[in-house]
Amino acid sequence: MQRYFVSPERMSDRAVMLTDEDARHFARVLRGKPGDRFIACDGAGRDALAEATRVGPDAVEAKVVRFLTESNEPPWAVTVAQSLPKGDKMEAVIQKGTETGAAAFWPFVSRRTVVEYDEAKEARRLARWRKIAKEAAEQAHRSAVPEVAPVMEWKDLLGRFALFDLVLFCYEEEGRRGKGLRTVLAEHRDRLAGGERPGGRPRLLIVIGPEGGFTAEEAEEAARAGAVWTGLGPRTLRTETAAPAALACLAYESGEMGR
Amino acid sequence: MQRYFVSPERMSDRAVMLTDEDARHFARVLRGKPGDRFIACDGAGRDALAEATRVGPDAVEAKVVRFLTESNEPPWAVTVAQSLPKGDKMEAVIQKGTETGAAAFWPFVSRRTVVEYDEAKEARRLARWRKIAKEAAEQAHRSAVPEVAPVMEWKDLLGRFALFDLVLFCYEEEGRRGKGLRTVLAEHRDRLAGGERPGGRPRLLIVIGPEGGFTAEEAEEAARAGAVWTGLGPRTLRTETAAPAALACLAYESGEMGR
Repeated sequence: MQRYFVSPERMSDRAVMLTDEDARHFARVLRGKPGDRFIACDGAGRDALAEATRVGPDAVEAKVVRFLTESNEPPWAVTVAQSLPKGDKMEAVIQKGTETGAAAFWPFVSRRTVVEYDEAKEARRLARWRKIAKEAAEQAHRSAVPEVAPVMEWKDLLGRFALFDLVLFCYEEEGRRGKGLRTVLAEHRDRLAGGERPGGRPRLLIVIGPEGGFTAEEAEEAARAGAVWTGLGPRTLRTETAAPAALACLAYESGEMGR
Repeated sequence: MQRYFVSPERMSDRAVMLTDEDARHFARVLRGKPGDRFIACDGAGRDALAEATRVGPDAVEAKVVRFLTESNEPPWAVTVAQSLPKGDKMEAVIQKGTETGAAAFWPFVSRRTVVEYDEAKEARRLARWRKIAKEAAEQAHRSAVPEVAPVMEWKDLLGRFALFDLVLFCYEEEGRRGKGLRTVLAEHRDRLAGGERPGGRPRLLIVIGPEGGFTAEEAEEAARAGAVWTGLGPRTLRTETAAPAALACLAYESGEMGR
């Protein structure tokens, strides 16, 4: 069934309204009529089964049939800090990372990031990334749209490590000789125990380097700021493959594919 | 260090020769000179550290310094059967799947495959897929190039299930309500025990459906042919995301990211 993310003010306990692109999609692409159903998500984890009552080209009114209790959100809230890759690869990271369960994306600039940063184009690019996250969340049947933050500097990223229960610094050197993701998660199991956190999910940050990798100095800075060096196996992953692969493994470890 | 896959007849115990594109890459792109080193892989798992002795634009002669004992090949040989996706997504599956450790790719046509199959263009497309596998294997530091088979029919694929120790049929319905990958692997642990197989690695097949998913009839046919229905978590993955995500989880489970 088609899912739409609507802003919370357009969804009450009884009614939902689709506007703009979503209304056009329902009316024209799906040829929705009164009586047809869809799922409306407020993006904060509340999903409603809705039935259209009035269908116009710019607005669709619907009543809430019932709220769905089942959430498709992962038990761990994983933020992806991605060093800005070349070309349109950030779009692939956001699309695939949304499917594999990311809670948020934080693009950043590190020493070997080769992309030139253009402030004038920045707003448009960010809007595009957010649109990709929204569409991917709808397609993947998620109950929340991952946040996409504006591009930040390496130093700012380091300063935010303290917000997380566990920061996984994906370091290629560690993949070959050091500790793999599974070992790291086992060693820090206590930090991920859900019961200790009032009402919240464990918060993880995975930090992915650019095409050329992190410098040894950056790896040291990350460790001093509290990150744990983590390998993703013996083979070198491209920068845009790393986050979806790590997210899949975290879904596997956190119980989303059984025990 | 740069890796090149050379055919076994160009690699003896003492010497290696690069030809064609690889020679041009070494001579022109890397500006390699006598004394410079590279890694030569025979594609069957034997990797040699080589040192150039004569560099020409069409051929590079090198001596073997030593063979590398460390292999980057996964402990499980995982073949990916991928229902042919739209556009150039098969290329993404091969590239990302090679990084995440696939042993082979078998594209196939199922009921809801929407790609038209054009026999005239087939040879060129297959050559392109194989080139992508070779380049991705070099970049990912693999010791073997995954095989890419010509497109096969669903019935032929079913007939080959018997070649594997475990066939994982990735079924979207199973992701939501049924058994996840981790549960399935735990239930069939005995089939993956390496010791029982003389000299070989356990052989797994993962079967991925097209954009529209498998039909219920295909799912039944797969089960009758010996496959186990497997979910990859509660969120719907795009067809081109499924194989790399499953391969990452298999690497995680098989011990490539620690214990």
